[in-house]
Amino acid sequence: LPTDRFFGPTYTTDAMEAATSDVAWLQAMLDVEAALARAEAQTGVIPAAAADAIAACCEAGRFDVARLGRDTVPAGNPVIPMVRALTRQVPEDAARYVHWGATSQDVLDSAMMLVARRGLELLTADVDIVASDCAGLARRHRDALMPGRTILQQALPITFGLKAAGWLAAVLDARRRLTEFERRGLAIQFGGAAGTLASLGERGLDVSRALAEQLDLPEPPLPWHTARGRVAELAGVLGRLAGTVGKLALDIALMAQTEVGEVAESGGPGRGGSSTLPHKRNPVASMAVRACVRGVNAQVSLLFGAMAHEHERAAGAWQAEWPAVGEALRLTAGAVARTHEMLDGLEVDAERMRRNVAMTRGLLVTEHVMMVLAERIGRLPAHDIVEEASARVATGGEDLREVLSADPRVSGPLSAAEIDAALDPAGYLGSAQAFIDRALAEYTKELGAEVS
Amino acid sequence: LPTDRFFGPTYTTDAMEAATSDVAWLQAMLDVEAALARAEAQTGVIPAAAADAIAACCEAGRFDVARLGRDTVPAGNPVIPMVRALTRQVPEDAARYVHWGATSQDVLDSAMMLVARRGLELLTADVDIVASDCAGLARRHRDALMPGRTILQQALPITFGLKAAGWLAAVLDARRRLTEFERRGLAIQFGGAAGTLASLGERGLDVSRALAEQLDLPEPPLPWHTARGRVAELAGVLGRLAGTVGKLALDIALMAQTEVGEVAESGGPGRGGSSTLPHKRNPVASMAVRACVRGVNAQVSLLFGAMAHEHERAAGAWQAEWPAVGEALRLTAGAVARTHEMLDGLEVDAERMRRNVAMTRGLLVTEHVMMVLAERIGRLPAHDIVEEASARVATGGEDLREVLSADPRVSGPLSAAEIDAALDPAGYLGSAQAFIDRALAEYTKELGAEVS
Amino acid sequence: LPTDRFFGPTYTTDAMEAATSDVAWLQAMLDVEAALARAEAQTGVIPAAAADAIAACCEAGRFDVARLGRDTVPAGNPVIPMVRALTRQVPEDAARYVHWGATSQDVLDSAMMLVARRGLELLTADVDIVASDCAGLARRHRDALMPGRTILQQALPITFGLKAAGWLAAVLDARRRLTEFERRGLAIQFGGAAGTLASLGERGLDVSRALAEQLDLPEPPLPWHTARGRVAELAGVLGRLAGTVGKLALDIALMAQTEVGEVAESGGPGRGGSSTLPHKRNPVASMAVRACVRGVNAQVSLLFGAMAHEHERAAGAWQAEWPAVGEALRLTAGAVARTHEMLDGLEVDAERMRRNVAMTRGLLVTEHVMMVLAERIGRLPAHDIVEEASARVATGGEDLREVLSADPRVSGPLSAAEIDAALDPAGYLGSAQAFIDRALAEYTKELGAEVS
Amino acid sequence: LPTDRFFGPTYTTDAMEAATSDVAWLQAMLDVEAALARAEAQTGVIPAAAADAIAACCEAGRFDVARLGRDTVPAGNPVIPMVRALTRQVPEDAARYVHWGATSQDVLDSAMMLVARRGLELLTADVDIVASDCAGLARRHRDALMPGRTILQQALPITFGLKAAGWLAAVLDARRRLTEFERRGLAIQFGGAAGTLASLGERGLDVSRALAEQLDLPEPPLPWHTARGRVAELAGVLGRLAGTVGKLALDIALMAQTEVGEVAESGGPGRGGSSTLPHKRNPVASMAVRACVRGVNAQVSLLFGAMAHEHERAAGAWQAEWPAVGEALRLTAGAVARTHEMLDGLEVDAERMRRNVAMTRGLLVTEHVMMVLAERIGRLPAHDIVEEASARVATGGEDLREVLSADPRVSGPLSAAEIDAALDPAGYLGSAQAFIDRALAEYTKELGAEVS
Repeated sequence: LPTDRFFGPTYTTDAMEAATSDVAWLQAMLDVEAALARAEAQTGVIPAAAADAIAACCEAGRFDVARLGRDTVPAGNPVIPMVRALTRQVPEDAARYVHWGATSQDVLDSAMMLVARRGLELLTADVDIVASDCAGLARRHRDALMPGRTILQQALPITFGLKAAGWLAAVLDARRRLTEFERRGLAIQFGGAAGTLASLGERGLDVSRALAEQLDLPEPPLPWHTARGRVAELAGVLGRLAGTVGKLALDIALMAQTEVGEVAESGGPGRGGSSTLPHKRNPVASMAVRACVRGVNAQVSLLFGAMAHEHERAAGAWQAEWPAVGEALRLTAGAVARTHEMLDGLEVDAERMRRNVAMTRGLLVTEHVMMVLAERIGRLPAHDIVEEASARVATGGEDLREVLSADPRVSGPLSAAEIDAALDPAGYLGSAQAFIDRALAEYTKELGAEVS
Repeated sequence: LPTDRFFGPTYTTDAMEAATSDVAWLQAMLDVEAALARAEAQTGVIPAAAADAIAACCEAGRFDVARLGRDTVPAGNPVIPMVRALTRQVPEDAARYVHWGATSQDVLDSAMMLVARRGLELLTADVDIVASDCAGLARRHRDALMPGRTILQQALPITFGLKAAGWLAAVLDARRRLTEFERRGLAIQFGGAAGTLASLGERGLDVSRALAEQLDLPEPPLPWHTARGRVAELAGVLGRLAGTVGKLALDIALMAQTEVGEVAESGGPGRGGSSTLPHKRNPVASMAVRACVRGVNAQVSLLFGAMAHEHERAAGAWQAEWPAVGEALRLTAGAVARTHEMLDGLEVDAERMRRNVAMTRGLLVTEHVMMVLAERIGRLPAHDIVEEASARVATGGEDLREVLSADPRVSGPLSAAEIDAALDPAGYLGSAQAFIDRALAEYTKELGAEVS
Repeated sequence: LPTDRFFGPTYTTDAMEAATSDVAWLQAMLDVEAALARAEAQTGVIPAAAADAIAACCEAGRFDVARLGRDTVPAGNPVIPMVRALTRQVPEDAARYVHWGATSQDVLDSAMMLVARRGLELLTADVDIVASDCAGLARRHRDALMPGRTILQQALPITFGLKAAGWLAAVLDARRRLTEFERRGLAIQFGGAAGTLASLGERGLDVSRALAEQLDLPEPPLPWHTARGRVAELAGVLGRLAGTVGKLALDIALMAQTEVGEVAESGGPGRGGSSTLPHKRNPVASMAVRACVRGVNAQVSLLFGAMAHEHERAAGAWQAEWPAVGEALRLTAGAVARTHEMLDGLEVDAERMRRNVAMTRGLLVTEHVMMVLAERIGRLPAHDIVEEASARVATGGEDLREVLSADPRVSGPLSAAEIDAALDPAGYLGSAQAFIDRALAEYTKELGAEVS
Repeated sequence: LPTDRFFGPTYTTDAMEAATSDVAWLQAMLDVEAALARAEAQTGVIPAAAADAIAACCEAGRFDVARLGRDTVPAGNPVIPMVRALTRQVPEDAARYVHWGATSQDVLDSAMMLVARRGLELLTADVDIVASDCAGLARRHRDALMPGRTILQQALPITFGLKAAGWLAAVLDARRRLTEFERRGLAIQFGGAAGTLASLGERGLDVSRALAEQLDLPEPPLPWHTARGRVAELAGVLGRLAGTVGKLALDIALMAQTEVGEVAESGGPGRGGSSTLPHKRNPVASMAVRACVRGVNAQVSLLFGAMAHEHERAAGAWQAEWPAVGEALRLTAGAVARTHEMLDGLEVDAERMRRNVAMTRGLLVTEHVMMVLAERIGRLPAHDIVEEASARVATGGEDLREVLSADPRVSGPLSAAEIDAALDPAGYLGSAQAFIDRALAEYTKELGAEVS
């Protein structure tokens, strides 16, 4: 595994780096060759002993990966030199059965599915942690008042728990697509040189079924060598997940602004500090997430654009997929892992949130005041009075309570306590708690986990 | 509807143009306002008479669309001037209940879902026609021998029916995603100014449920104002469909090349001709499909990239979605409709296909010959003999039959009839027919239609 | 011109809408036909009278644009039906000389250059206004202290004038690329049916030169029918300009946040208000700019991706360019125009900026304090003292002045006045003024205009 | 350097891999630190001895790259741990002057420019080779008749030399942009923590100028920390170059089709062969080019999209640039290098080209025949006669010569020799030779090289 990376650790995880490394791809290809041999032994196409001999050699450690990479350039794909090298390793009797009836694309596409499956497993585990982070925040901060902001302007009070519940719901949605794709999007590719399985004669479909069993992957009705919907769908699933956590990271970055100060990523040695500016605590995980997301989107764009495969095998679009799928998995893993780092130990300043709610001196709940007043004196007069009061607050230094209390048109119909209640942001949260409950219930149901 | 378009008719359909027009968006927004009023009457939030009065005015024809567009610029979104205009139309008693408890984003996002639903209905109908085209080609040409081509080189024989079956399977896959999204991807958006439904007090969830019923759209567990996964997923579904038919168009363009000549798009007045070059029959539908697909991919890229919404409403990313969703629908419709034009009346030259199979003078079936010979004399000798023969064919003018028949190492073990059989491309099609059957069976099952 | 647009006016300007409309494209194509006829008359290829007759008919108003659009679908490009319609209009003697020696792509590509030239002129004019806005802000607010922010954290003091100067420098850079492309990126396309000008015999190059003169466009050394670098370069120039103003819009949106409050877009009737939240002033122009920029980037991606043209004319990639170029121009115009709206009448709250500088109670200038102190007592002791003081400020309620003044290790070596000076953010601006001067000087030099 | 790559060697060159490796980035950052120290010594800001001591340690080999990568994650960028590690290496007296007055972004952005400069040098050298390849093909095959093809249909005769001249012109155009960017697009970034150079007091501009000299990079008028036009422009320059060679690769792939057979990539051991299909010669370099181009476009899209940097340093968009710039350079290098492999030793089958010209039995020159005949009998009668003849050729088995010679309306006015001349494709090439000469003249002039 490459260890000499500045940039790698920022943009992915060690586990995903390993799962999508060249060695991992090589091993996946070898796994396909071994499974093919076994499937063909099982269906009587090749001798069982040959299959055993082949399978025994299908260990990435036996191969010179760098050499295979070099030989890939003239060959056009890595399967060709790999098969050549594997054949050299296998005893002569069995060697002739290596790669029997298969074509390079069968091996590489099926290997891509194995790499994707492993990648999706890793991602799902990391997404579960992020979902747990969100659920915990939603539960713990369900009453933490903060400003809801639309178009970056304070709009109405919400709670931080509601915001986290919204994140949670989005993460669960993205996770569903991940799981669903894992279940029904993956498939073996097996079609032989042109998609007919011609060299297997009458046995093509039997071998195909057995290969699917060996690899524990679904068998598609037809080979999909140039039907790349599943690759684009994989890209979409990753892009959606990345985009989802990207939104969390954007919110955190905005909340962590010096002037907002509602959250701070957890500090720690060497974390987010600035050598020259000791007071800074940079939201480094947030920014790493956002960088990863841009990278994922680039690969999503590539993979949708690369669906145009020529005839029975593409001259370029297919070869563009190999690094793109790995890169999309790596960067999505980076985005998700950094999201956990961002949320784990997040310092939440509920007091600052409350101060932010108060900073417009009551304007955040004008709508509520107007509604309460309207019940007593009618909507239009209420509207005019509150609008006038709001204008005074917005331009002067008074707060809305003062202005309203001093206005007999308000202090007449409403008691001081009623004015206070109307001005209490905590009293104007609508269905926030119900929405939080819904998100937590979904979490518990789908992940079968308690909320931390 | 705009009629002054050079480019429009090439890139979309009239029906989709209408379904995504400004008037259609306006009507969808008005439909949401009407449904909201009815839902609120139903739950006792506003008077039933007010709801009736509001709903009666929710007709796009009553509004000056151009004026609303102008007023959108300073307002920041089209809902604001629309609500203002609607309020002016509604009798005074009811006017105060217009847009009650909702925010602009509720109306626009829910309207987007209505536009998308209509768009997906149109698309599904057009996809069905394309699937039918593919199924018909697969059935009618199931025995039409042609070269399978990998990396643009002839590889092994296939049949045109198998190629069409591959298209069909891919189209059916894309259709499944479309249908699935239609069923579970759409949802009302309803959260009020900051996602709490605060202004509806205790009635938020009741109104939400009633609104979902009125619009016949699912109610999501939480408002999704800044959880844009469903918009990205819609983009992915469209991108996959477009990419799928883009592959068909690429194959047709390649098969229609003068030097290949296996298909021609149907001619007709003004169709594909060249004023200066009378012999040309340009694959104009194919090229239009491919142009549309590039356009769809651009919007897919935008919509995945635009998932990063700030806080409770985005300042830019949301506003970027509106034209993108319409454009993605329009261009996907164009891609699908032009695909039908391309396939409908496609002239298939089975004789030319067969000549193309023969043009390498037998080389397309060397693999088969080698396998047949290997059964008699062993794999290695067979391999060497056939390789030698192939080299002579490739460089000289003889065909493989001549070379093999003249070689006693072949004509000894194999009879002339056996050599002929080994050289018959129709005898080396493996599971092609089974694959065709599978694709047709899927078609019949899923669309409940006979294959034409 | 389409007037029934919700979305149009938000995303472009009227002038650019007109300059890239279907009618504008049609007129540009007719302009090419007229210029071709004149060029061929001038070089003796066709009779002068025929050229006059043709040119006289080259008025878009004489054509049924909608009909031409319909006829484009089967024809494959709009030139074919346009030439047919033009030929019908021209008197019989001259009719045979219409489109003489040209191919559809010659006309469409050259027309694209005319559309682009007009679009670039409009853009340049709008960019000049934005540059003027930036220059004015840089000059007027050159001393307005505000926090410089890195990774969304306050870092060091800057002035708003410096920020605006940075915008100005970036806008001037983008403008240079625009101007440069206008000067040397445009070119006629003229190659005939396959790029040889065969039908003009010996006269091809003469006609080509004359056509370039007629259209006042450079003549390229070779026809560029499938060398699409200039189209990609145009996309890049637009993308860079859009990206540049997108950064301005992002800064404004961030500065306009309720919690930051340093700027507000100018209000006015129907501008940025919220029907339900009277205190809000949404940065509507900023968000429109950012929406436009996403749209431009989508077309940039398309146009770079569409460079792969097959042989002597592409089957899809070329046809994808037509709407993309128009859309990129329109959206870039929208981005630039909305940027002017955003900056024009921008309300700058210098007092709030100063309060934001002060909100960290001196931490913004710890670096300065440390440097001043280091000169007296050495760097390491100074560093430790200031770090300790900063920590107290960050966690407690005191400000840095209080902490430092109370520390004899500071108040010994430094006088109260010296401490004050070290803590004055205005005293720690480095080369800010020089940078502002540089940007303003560039502006004056390149635009030949006074700074407003 | 990572050597364990399957995919690497296919998608880039060893030299570019090295020039954009983590070690190369680290060395570039250290080069900036060394240059900064020297510049500050030169301007009297730090002692000369300190600068020497610092510079002596600025060797990548002295650092643990993997460790720096790990420490980058919490730090947020690689400069922070690098400066820490460098400071530890430098003797105590000098250590305090490491990174004096600079911020992380200064170092990383300036390092990016150094990496880009080296990358552009490598690219230019490789582009020169590709230009030479094209020039050689244009010269050697200037008379090799082949069909010009529009929309993948044969249109008119051209020569292979003309096609290669078109490639050459496009490559020279892309090269000009490369050279131009190298000359005026690169620049040091130097602004200190917030773009004011505050910590350098009065000396900021002096140090800036000296740093630019030390690094031999232009000094921009203002720091460009959040003005990312030059990064987007770099992306555009690379994207254009990649797109340009992508077109060459597409043409080669199409010409190498079995049914077209006009070119074949050079064979050789392990090159382009198929293990199971011995007759295949896959255009492996062409397909690798096309795969690389898709990868470049993905990064172009990312880099244009990432121009929106927040305030004085971005929280995500900046961090997304680092891997993207390296990847764009690597993939562009791969595209260019594989293009040379594709063209070097390209087997050109002029005889097959000629056969392809003839395969429509004269239809490729109907336009010419019509023109020649029109001179004798008028345009309309000529048109009708030739159209009728063409229709017979297209549907029947005769060739155009036979049909025309048998028609007294043709054989009357035209002699047999005149008919032959009109039907000779070599006689209908218009300005092809002049265009080839122009392209070769440009090549010679700009590269100062003979055409091989």
